[in-house]
Amino acid sequence: MIRSIHESPLYRIVNPRSIAFFGASNNFSRMGSIMLSSVQALGYEGAIYPVHQTEQEVRGLRAYPDVPSLPEVPDLAIIVLPTEVVCDTLEACGRKGVKQAIVVSGGFREAGPEGARLQKDLEAIADRYGIRFLGPNCLGVANPHLKLNPTPITAEGPPGFVGLASQSGSFITQMFNYLHRHGMGFSAALSVGNEANIDIVDCMEYLGACPNTRVIALYVEGIARGEKFIETARAITPHKPIVALYVGGSEAGRRAGFSHTGSMSGPNEIYDGVFKQCGIIRAHTLSELFDYSLALGTLPRPRGNRVIIQTHSGGPGATAADSCGRAGLTLPSLSAQTLEKLKPLIPQTASTANPVDMTFSKNPMDDFYKIPDVLLQEENADMLMVYFLSPGIFIDRVMRDLGVPAESIAAEGEKLIKQQTDAFFSLTRTYDKPIVGFTYRSLQEQMVRNLLELGVPIYQDPDRAARSIAAVIAYYKMRDHVSAK
Amino acid sequence: MIRSIHESPLYRIVNPRSIAFFGASNNFSRMGSIMLSSVQALGYEGAIYPVHQTEQEVRGLRAYPDVPSLPEVPDLAIIVLPTEVVCDTLEACGRKGVKQAIVVSGGFREAGPEGARLQKDLEAIADRYGIRFLGPNCLGVANPHLKLNPTPITAEGPPGFVGLASQSGSFITQMFNYLHRHGMGFSAALSVGNEANIDIVDCMEYLGACPNTRVIALYVEGIARGEKFIETARAITPHKPIVALYVGGSEAGRRAGFSHTGSMSGPNEIYDGVFKQCGIIRAHTLSELFDYSLALGTLPRPRGNRVIIQTHSGGPGATAADSCGRAGLTLPSLSAQTLEKLKPLIPQTASTANPVDMTFSKNPMDDFYKIPDVLLQEENADMLMVYFLSPGIFIDRVMRDLGVPAESIAAEGEKLIKQQTDAFFSLTRTYDKPIVGFTYRSLQEQMVRNLLELGVPIYQDPDRAARSIAAVIAYYKMRDHVSAK
Repeated sequence: MIRSIHESPLYRIVNPRSIAFFGASNNFSRMGSIMLSSVQALGYEGAIYPVHQTEQEVRGLRAYPDVPSLPEVPDLAIIVLPTEVVCDTLEACGRKGVKQAIVVSGGFREAGPEGARLQKDLEAIADRYGIRFLGPNCLGVANPHLKLNPTPITAEGPPGFVGLASQSGSFITQMFNYLHRHGMGFSAALSVGNEANIDIVDCMEYLGACPNTRVIALYVEGIARGEKFIETARAITPHKPIVALYVGGSEAGRRAGFSHTGSMSGPNEIYDGVFKQCGIIRAHTLSELFDYSLALGTLPRPRGNRVIIQTHSGGPGATAADSCGRAGLTLPSLSAQTLEKLKPLIPQTASTANPVDMTFSKNPMDDFYKIPDVLLQEENADMLMVYFLSPGIFIDRVMRDLGVPAESIAAEGEKLIKQQTDAFFSLTRTYDKPIVGFTYRSLQEQMVRNLLELGVPIYQDPDRAARSIAAVIAYYKMRDHVSAK
Repeated sequence: MIRSIHESPLYRIVNPRSIAFFGASNNFSRMGSIMLSSVQALGYEGAIYPVHQTEQEVRGLRAYPDVPSLPEVPDLAIIVLPTEVVCDTLEACGRKGVKQAIVVSGGFREAGPEGARLQKDLEAIADRYGIRFLGPNCLGVANPHLKLNPTPITAEGPPGFVGLASQSGSFITQMFNYLHRHGMGFSAALSVGNEANIDIVDCMEYLGACPNTRVIALYVEGIARGEKFIETARAITPHKPIVALYVGGSEAGRRAGFSHTGSMSGPNEIYDGVFKQCGIIRAHTLSELFDYSLALGTLPRPRGNRVIIQTHSGGPGATAADSCGRAGLTLPSLSAQTLEKLKPLIPQTASTANPVDMTFSKNPMDDFYKIPDVLLQEENADMLMVYFLSPGIFIDRVMRDLGVPAESIAAEGEKLIKQQTDAFFSLTRTYDKPIVGFTYRSLQEQMVRNLLELGVPIYQDPDRAARSIAAVIAYYKMRDHVSAK
């Protein structure tokens, strides 16, 4: 294990001060051009040197005809060239003294025996010059904290805490939008491609040491260095959670993975066993991978598995209870003390069995502060799960009733929602208990969106919320187990 | 079983020509007022008679001081009054000759022994006057095809094909937004509350006969008339699918359901057995309930379980393959004939193993017509599952490359996406094979949104798509089984 992030071969690949770009031109339909445009869009502040045989300028940047003419030795070479010129380019980089590269180009091991031979040549060149590289057949890295995104799709949303190491490039480049909508962002994302020189274990090790990464997410089609994987993961999970989506377990998934990156996969049971002994939480879908990452990256450690569900609708409360039951969570009864404190806040029709179903709101302003505040004080419970309908609906109603003029309702509503958001969010700072939300409405509605941006996990189904809480509990349980060994 | 929808006690509750509204006033914070405003918002065209002791006019409608003064015998009475005056009101309606009612008011069986006695009184009054009623403690009905929505939340989206019978009122009123975002709408939605006079079996029977309903969705906390339920469901499922979410199976769900509607639930295994012998598909979450409803309401019968996955990204293809494998679907190899036809359409880097991974698009315009057209002709496959990234991204790129001026790109892009949508949609009419999509982006992006509105099911995770297809297969298998008995 590395003792510092600076020891990782990935350090200057993820944090380059300067980049030589091969394959970008003024023809925008080329992959290289698209990738360079993403880098420019996010505002990377290091030096960028496009290398192009004929163009003087590429996308507004001074271009260089070849490697020797580069004005300095760049930290990183990004190569998006036709397969047949990749080896020569890496060789030229090596001669210049370049020590890090990303080889985006495909046509290597994944393309058959001839490609595999070419990949051997590439590896030999790297070894000769002491170059460390990601790929070939990968989409490289994204480091939003450095405003660096050399992937083909423009980044969205602020930098975050999810560190992804992926055997699929798509999940680096195509997930910015997904993560942003769900209240997350990448700390760093690494696409390993054919893993000729740097593999997913190196990436995991890097992310383990990365200070911006609170949770490591892995997308795995097959692991080659099994022992090293286990050793590295076991060193990380006692201080940082790892969630892994492994798709090679089913026959169909296995075949798909093989034709994708040529990786060798194994039966589900073997991977289940490996993950378990490493303290890694397994996800079965991409949604689970990021649902669990969100909870693990935002929630404090739960003291137990006892949940209070707060709702103002019976059905959503019952589905949440059912999901909690299935996820191994329990619903304790409220103590006499809590019932006493709740009484003035809820109508007579309310049910104070757990789920706490307010049926309707006596005062809608209490829904997101006074009531959860009381519920969070309950000694018989370890967590709070809250159903979010759309406070906008209630607020509109109250304001109309108070005679607020129609034209002021939107602005006043926004202000009130902001107040409620802040009040609810303050509870996550007051109590050291996990607070999770669920809604059947869009995550983009104002209050939910505000809370997501503040780091309160809210899910689109109580089942996803319950299973994410269960993942957090499972992580800490496994962590105790791994640490004890 | 009823032979015609007109025989159902619900017919004039769901399709009233006139409504007397009790509990609406000019005080907008009252539930009755809110419900009346929803009716007005959707544009119900029948007569509405608010009954109010003192107000001359309620929300712009002429109000009547009592039941005798109503100008006609309304088809339906909607009662949203304090518990203590509900019985007298129903009695007055009975005397007037009203034969249908919705009792929204709570405070009956769900509220304890005294409420249970009051409910008995209510039942006796109804019996005396031959009144059939939904509730008490319910949110009534929504019939978007009649522009009728007397629930507290404004309806969204066009009428649809999902008929919901629910033991939770929330799932009637709070699901318009959810269904619309996911490409569906209610044909009719019925909230049964305490089921004093009309129960979920009556609702299922109504929806079985309802011509607008292509799929019946049930939200169940506990079924009282077990035998009648089985008999009715078995008569419906041979011609119309039923999907049921049952939440009373876990200890937590059972207790939540009991305090919600006082219903008695039973172990999961018993309900599993009942559903199975009726040919009902069981859902475990609300998302599943509507995911399965969407597939069952839009897809033709699959001839088998062999799926082709079309993608331009390896990772999403592999996760889809894994999900298909888990859902019991198989991924056949493509025939030599299909491979021959694909060759001119896809780049050399493409993988024609299944998933068919185009890696990148030779011509993005082929992604949604020529390529799926070839794949749908494959004799070894029964279905097509397509990954949707965001055609907007590719189209923008192509147009920039073609030199389309920046200011025209949005409008031109919209036109092109419309063309692609229409081309893709035409395939669902050309081939009698299920076509399903998945995306990790928002369902509200233009092409996906267009396709959802045309009735092509697209899911937010391939796992949801695969399990929905499996639900369709399971339905037809059970249907054959039920019919054969």
